[in-house]
This record gives sequence, C-alpha cells and structure tokens, in this order.
Amino acid sequence: MKFNATQIAELVSGTVDGNPKAEVSKLSKIEEGTTGSLSFLANPKYTSFLYSTAATITLVSDDFVADKEYKTTLIRVSDPYEAFSKLLSHYNEIKHVPTPSVSDKAYISDDASCSNGISIGNYAHIDAHTTLGKNCVIHSQVYIGKNVSIGDNTIIHVGARILDDTVIGSHCVIHNNAVIGADGFGWAPNDNGSYDKVPQTGNVVLGNNVDVGANTNIDRATLGSTRIGNGVKLDNLIQIGHNVEIGDHTVIAAQTGIAGSTKIGTHCQIGGQVGISGHLTIGNRVGIQAKSGILKNLKDDAKVMGYPAFDYTAFNKSYVHFRNLHTHIKDLQSLQKKLNHD
Amino acid sequence: MKFNATQIAELVSGTVDGNPKAEVSKLSKIEEGTTGSLSFLANPKYTSFLYSTAATITLVSDDFVADKEYKTTLIRVSDPYEAFSKLLSHYNEIKHVPTPSVSDKAYISDDASCSNGISIGNYAHIDAHTTLGKNCVIHSQVYIGKNVSIGDNTIIHVGARILDDTVIGSHCVIHNNAVIGADGFGWAPNDNGSYDKVPQTGNVVLGNNVDVGANTNIDRATLGSTRIGNGVKLDNLIQIGHNVEIGDHTVIAAQTGIAGSTKIGTHCQIGGQVGISGHLTIGNRVGIQAKSGILKNLKDDAKVMGYPAFDYTAFNKSYVHFRNLHTHIKDLQSLQKKLNHD
Amino acid sequence: MKFNATQIAELVSGTVDGNPKAEVSKLSKIEEGTTGSLSFLANPKYTSFLYSTAATITLVSDDFVADKEYKTTLIRVSDPYEAFSKLLSHYNEIKHVPTPSVSDKAYISDDASCSNGISIGNYAHIDAHTTLGKNCVIHSQVYIGKNVSIGDNTIIHVGARILDDTVIGSHCVIHNNAVIGADGFGWAPNDNGSYDKVPQTGNVVLGNNVDVGANTNIDRATLGSTRIGNGVKLDNLIQIGHNVEIGDHTVIAAQTGIAGSTKIGTHCQIGGQVGISGHLTIGNRVGIQAKSGILKNLKDDAKVMGYPAFDYTAFNKSYVHFRNLHTHIKDLQSLQKKLNHD
Repeated sequence: MKFNATQIAELVSGTVDGNPKAEVSKLSKIEEGTTGSLSFLANPKYTSFLYSTAATITLVSDDFVADKEYKTTLIRVSDPYEAFSKLLSHYNEIKHVPTPSVSDKAYISDDASCSNGISIGNYAHIDAHTTLGKNCVIHSQVYIGKNVSIGDNTIIHVGARILDDTVIGSHCVIHNNAVIGADGFGWAPNDNGSYDKVPQTGNVVLGNNVDVGANTNIDRATLGSTRIGNGVKLDNLIQIGHNVEIGDHTVIAAQTGIAGSTKIGTHCQIGGQVGISGHLTIGNRVGIQAKSGILKNLKDDAKVMGYPAFDYTAFNKSYVHFRNLHTHIKDLQSLQKKLNHD
Repeated sequence: MKFNATQIAELVSGTVDGNPKAEVSKLSKIEEGTTGSLSFLANPKYTSFLYSTAATITLVSDDFVADKEYKTTLIRVSDPYEAFSKLLSHYNEIKHVPTPSVSDKAYISDDASCSNGISIGNYAHIDAHTTLGKNCVIHSQVYIGKNVSIGDNTIIHVGARILDDTVIGSHCVIHNNAVIGADGFGWAPNDNGSYDKVPQTGNVVLGNNVDVGANTNIDRATLGSTRIGNGVKLDNLIQIGHNVEIGDHTVIAAQTGIAGSTKIGTHCQIGGQVGISGHLTIGNRVGIQAKSGILKNLKDDAKVMGYPAFDYTAFNKSYVHFRNLHTHIKDLQSLQKKLNHD
Repeated sequence: MKFNATQIAELVSGTVDGNPKAEVSKLSKIEEGTTGSLSFLANPKYTSFLYSTAATITLVSDDFVADKEYKTTLIRVSDPYEAFSKLLSHYNEIKHVPTPSVSDKAYISDDASCSNGISIGNYAHIDAHTTLGKNCVIHSQVYIGKNVSIGDNTIIHVGARILDDTVIGSHCVIHNNAVIGADGFGWAPNDNGSYDKVPQTGNVVLGNNVDVGANTNIDRATLGSTRIGNGVKLDNLIQIGHNVEIGDHTVIAAQTGIAGSTKIGTHCQIGGQVGISGHLTIGNRVGIQAKSGILKNLKDDAKVMGYPAFDYTAFNKSYVHFRNLHTHIKDLQSLQKKLNHD
C-alpha cells in the first residue's frame, strides 16, 4: 500500500514542503530512512540526520528552518512526534485488522455463538457454548474451550489457548501461545509423602482493554475466579497463579511471577522477573523494581527493591555499603587490632 | 448439569436441612454464593456469611446451630471441608473427562498404536511407532512425535509438544504448550569463536503421576535420558535442562530453571524462580526458598536461601543486618573517629 | 536402522577387534550400555565399565590394552571421543532430517514462494508473500505469517510462530513454541491513568546459524528491527524485547530477559535467569553470571555478578562477608561496648 505526500499531509493536518507526489510505503527512524520510507524529526539532537536521510518523506515542526541541503520531502506539522504516532496507529490498523472471514479449515462447534464481523483462522478450534463478540479476530491455530465468553473487538493471536469457562472483555489482545485458564498448582500432601491434586474448578475473568503477552500463563482459580482488571498490561512469559486478583491499569513486565491468591492494587508498575509470594495484599500505585522478591504485604504508593524487598531508597543505601563490604570489614578488623594492642 | 439437595446429601453422606429439591449447578465460596451455587461453612470465622449468602445449598457441620435467619438449604455433614473437597473432585471428573472419541480432523499415523478408551482432539498429530495407553486423552492441537510411549489414563492438554522417543508413565497430566523432548542446549566452542552443536540424541522419561505445567520445557538428554520421577509436580514456565534427574515426589514452583546434568533427590520442595547450576547433586527432602540460586551440592534435608544460596536461618540473620547496613557502617565510622581522636 | 561393526569402523576410520557382524541401533554411555547399543571409552576413569558393559560395540583408543575379560566388540580408533561425536552427528542427521514432503493437511498461501527440497508438516500455516529457502523444514502446527523470509536449510520446529515481516537467515533452528515477532511491550501513559498502545510496526531479523530455544520470545521492533546476529544461540524461555540488538556468536542461557533497545556485543556469554534493563550498551566478550541484574552499560570483557551487578571478583569478596555479617556486627558491637566502658 502506497501513500503520497498530499494524502499524508491531509491525514496529519500538515503542509507539504517538497514533492507532493512523493510516495512512501513504510515507516522508519530518520537515521535508518530508505527510499519509500516516511520518517520524522522531533528531537533537535537528530537534526543532522535530516540532511543525510534517504527517507522519501520526513515530518518536521512548522518552524523548522534548514541550514543545509536535503533530499527528503518535508511535511510540516505542529507536533511531528504526535503526527508520526498517529500515522503509526493508522498503519497498524490497516495492516493488522484482517477483512472478516471464517476459515473452512477451522472447527467451530454448532453450539458456539459468533457475532458479526468475526474472523477465524485456519486450524482454530472453537468449542461448545462459547460466545464471540462483534469484530473479534481469532487467528490460526488458536484454541477456545467450552463456555468461554469473549467481548467485542478482542484479538486472540496465533496459538493462544483460552480454556473452559474463561471470560474475556472487549478490546483485549491475547498474544501468541499465551495460556489462559490452565489448572492452578494446588497439591495436598498425603501421609505417604506423595501429593493429591486439589481440583481447580474456578475460572479466569479478564476486564476490558487487557493485554496478555506471548507465552504468558494465567491459571484458573481453585474456586471462584482469577481476576485481571480493566486496562491491565501483561508482558511475555509471566505467571499468574490461581485466585490472583490484579487491579485496573496495573502494568507488569516480562517473566514476573505472582503466586496464588495474592491481590494487587490498581495503577501498580511491576518490573520484570519480579516474584510475589502467595496470599499477599499489594496496595495501589505500588512500584516494584525488576527482579525483586516480595514476601510481605505492601501499602499504597510503596516503592521497593531487593530480595526480600524493602524500601527502594533504603535498599540502595545498603547496597552501596555491600559493594564496599570488604573495605568496611578491614576497617573493623584494624580497629579490633588497635584496641587489643592498647 | 444440575443436582438437587437429596442427591448431594447422598454423595457426601449428609442430611438435608431445608428444601430437598433445591438445585445447584456450580460451586462457590460462601461469601460469593449465588442462586444455583453450592457452598460450605468450615471455618467459624465465616459464620456471618451463612446468614447473608445467596448460595442455594450450604454444607455445614452436624452440630451447627444458627442464631439468625438464613435462606440457604443446609446439608449437615461430619466434616464440611472434606465433603466439599469430595464434591470438587467429583465435579472435576464429570467436567473434564471427555467421552472417548477420536476426531476425524486429527492426523494419526498408520504405524501408531492406540489402546481402548482413547480421545484424540482436532488437529492433533500422532506420529509413527507411538503407543498410547488405555483411556489417554490427547486434546486438540497436540503434537506427539515418533516412537513415543504414553501410559494409561494420561492427559495431554491442548498445544503440548511431546517429541520423538519420549516415554511418559500412567496418570500423568501435561499442561498446555508444554514442550517435552526439545534439544538440550549443548554447544562446543570452535577455534573461530563460533559454536558447534553437540547432537542431542537421548530422550526424556517421565514416571507415573507426573504433572508438567503450562509452557514448561523438559529437554532431551545429550545421551541417555532426562528423568522425572514418579509423582513429581512441575508448575508453569519451568526449564529442565538435558540429562537432569528429579527424584520421586519432588515439587517445583513456577519459573524455576535447572541446568544440565543436575540430579535432584526425592521429596524436595523447590520454590519459584529458583536457579540451579549444572552438574550438581541435590539431596532428598531439600527445601529451596523461591528466587534462590544454587551453585553447590546440597545435603539431605538442607534448607537454603539466597544467591548464592546458603543455610536459610543464616541467610535471614545476615539479611537483617544488610537492611541496617547504613546504621552499622555509621557506628563503625564513629568508632574510628573516636579512636583516632583518643 | 541397524549398523554392524564393519560399517561403523569404516565411518570412523577404525579397526574392529571382535565380532565384525555385531549390530547396534542406538548410542549409550558405557555405564548404561545395553544389547544393541554402541558406546565409547575415552576417559581412563571409566575403564572398569568396559569389563562389565552390556553395550554391543565400544569405541576405544588404538593403544587400549585390556587386563580383564570383556564381552563387547571393540572398534579401535585414534580418538574415541571424536569418533563418537562423529557418529552422534551422523545419527542425528539420519534421524531428524525428514525426506522432503509437503503435507496436504497444511495451508500454503498461493502467494507464498517455496524453494526446492522443502518439507511442510500437518496443520502448518504459511501465509502470503512469504519465501522459504532450499531444504527448509517447516514442522507440523507451525505458523508463518505474511511477508516472512526464511533462508536455506533452516528448521522450524512444531508449534513455533514466525510472525509477519520476520527475516530468518540460513541454517537456523527455531525450537518448539518459540514466538518471533510478537508485539513489543510499548505503552504511553494517558492523563486518565490508563495506557495507550505504542504501535509496534518494525520486525525481527535473525542472521545465519541462529538457534532459538523452545518457548523463547523475540519481540518485533517498534520501528526498525530487533536484530539477532550470526551464530547467536538462545536457550529456552528467553525474553528479547523490542529493538534489542545481539552481536554475533553471543550465547544466552535459559529464562534470561533483555529489555527494549539494549545492544549486546559479540561473543558474550550470558547465564540463565539474567535480567538486563532497557537502553543499555553491553560490550563484546562480556560474561554475566546467572541470575545477575544489569542496570548499567558494561565495557568489553567485563565479568559481572549480583543484582545490581558489579565486578565478579568484587561481588564474591563482598558476599563472603555478607555470609558472616552476623559475626562482623557482633564484633562491632563488642568494640562499641568496650569503648563506652573505657
């Protein structure tokens, strides 16, 4: 798909300064511009690249004044970064939203209920008593179990597994090979040293605008529901244990794990590779540094680090001394010597 | 599926106190009871919920005496928690064991051998010289390679990959998107700074009653077998390296990784996000705290924490001082000052 | 497939000492030899096993002199370990490279372009404008999106997902359920406390001879490319964020995560469960101990450990004192007492 400078200027309410017929078919950074790419100059630090870029079109600020020659066609806008973001979104929409179509190589139970505007890819499996909302996109090789409910405009990417009884809101995106609703890890020790399975009969409930990363797992509840609030963003390879609850608009980076029955507040920011023990209560707006291990409840607005984690500033103070521990202990030992000699 | 109070009382050897025709179709916690749900009251702390619950039926103790009005139908039993667990198991069995059927949308090699009572889902692939035991359930989109052997009553969930030569015992459960038998990570450095692959020609052998979590990997041995003992329970997103051996009834929480050729004893409890180096020997009944890193062999009954890990109690003693290191170093510095002034 | 001693001696340029018709069909360690297996004796420590092994054939050194009876047929070679490695590779090749064939249960877009000698398994999906090089093996249940380019002799294992616009070189191996090209984790905070998605419109580019482990994710760039150099080896369950660049012949162990836009040099060795923050520059030949957390740039040849990581030797010095912190603090306190009493 190609767009010319005039069309793009219209999309971003800008004015063309150069060849109005210049055509682009992709986006690039200004320092990586190539023939046919559209770029932008927002940060003055990058101005030098404008004179060398091979990008066919570049978005610049209304007040940009060149002091050297350049080859790219300019489109002048009030905020080049915002204009570029707008084009990104537009590009993405055109690119990733397929024309609705249901593959004849998919399995759809006669007892499933599909709304209008749905896409279903090859080798997908949609089981009985499942409801798919309007404009849902179910990509190839996806599995959706029995009695699942998926809201409008939700996208399930290739290879994701949505197991029985899961409820997913609208405008959610579930990435590749994510697993929602596998059994929680519940084992009751036996007298003979082995373990009996605690049946996991609950489900998983996702709010609206939830993103679930690739290869991320959200386990079903033992009883009741594992709940992920509205606007929660989960990165890749995350583990969410049974009966966990995550408040609205909390963001969690890759490879973090949250053990069973822990409740996390709203608007938290949790780094990557964090571990949170089971049965804890984490407040709202809590910040947890990457790789921290949480063994205790945390109050609203806490900022923590370390394993076990404590206050972020205090951790860093202690860690500075840890780095120099060898010197400190030498000092201690020379004091001891001195005193023993006195 | 609906059950009435009389039928349930029979299942749990209880007596109905209320409407014997009251019908339920799901299970709930007492504080989350709804019309049509069955709940239980085991912990006296929760007694107040009995008077407000909307659960249609509630299991209570034989000697329960109400001191307020309530709407739910009671079923009196000697141990409400045990009775509820029994119902959970029963419910789970009815729900998750499909009627045996083999999909005509599956690929089954003519050279595979399937026993009685088997289920095979859509788009599953069962390759040559593979044997499936009685009552196995192979869910949709599963891959089972060549020369695999799977014991009776084992369940392979949607999207799991069981690669060539793997041996799986009976009564095992392999969860979604788990990978059993991918190549181990073996590389021999070359003179030119690149790496040659060490061929991984061994296999993976799982005992009976093994559970493997979603997105968990167990790599095949370089030579011989990677071995997982009877009754071992592996949570999600775990990495088991080539030639690892895990003893019977050891339990490992999510996101833990075990490097190649390490041997782990029986009845160990290993927390989440633990890392264990390669070529180590870990004894029996060892306890490893979440997030620990193990760089040395561990004796039977060791309890360890930290990275590198050492004795659990000693770690916690050290860590208390680490938290206060700033104060300790200040004390040290004021001692130094004092002595230098003397 | 069976081979006799004469055939094997020929393959490894050795001489048979025993039964030239002895037949083997698998490889084993000498201490685990069974009827029909071929083993080797390279390390003199294992000599005693030669007299008891049940292996049908054993590779030994030219100058080996037995001082007891044994049953196995010997094949004498100049370097038994090298000879065995050669057989391993040979065995692997025969075993794992399928005869080229394209399944009629696969979906291949009419607009995809396949070279000679290709294999495509059941339920695989190859989308439009995608090019597959010579002798590629696309296993069952693999997904390859639109506009993907895959070089010659590359193997994509069962369940891997190669998303739109990905470029993969030749002689690469992508293991099971790996995801290449899912969206990066980019979110712009809103005024109302929720997050807007930053569209991820770039791609992933892999060099030649790259290995990607099972369940590993490599996210597409926001803009431009996430780049993995030639000869890079990634273990299982790794997370590579958007716009990351990894230099040639760097090796990364399982469960490590690298956040967005970080650049890693060539010939680095990075342990398992390491976390590396975003927007960092890591030099060439850097060594990072398992479980470390990297928050700062690292120079060429740095060797680091800890979280936050610093020099490997310094970390270990500090950690020795950390283990004994309780004793050190007691010493400090008794000094304080002594001084206060003086």
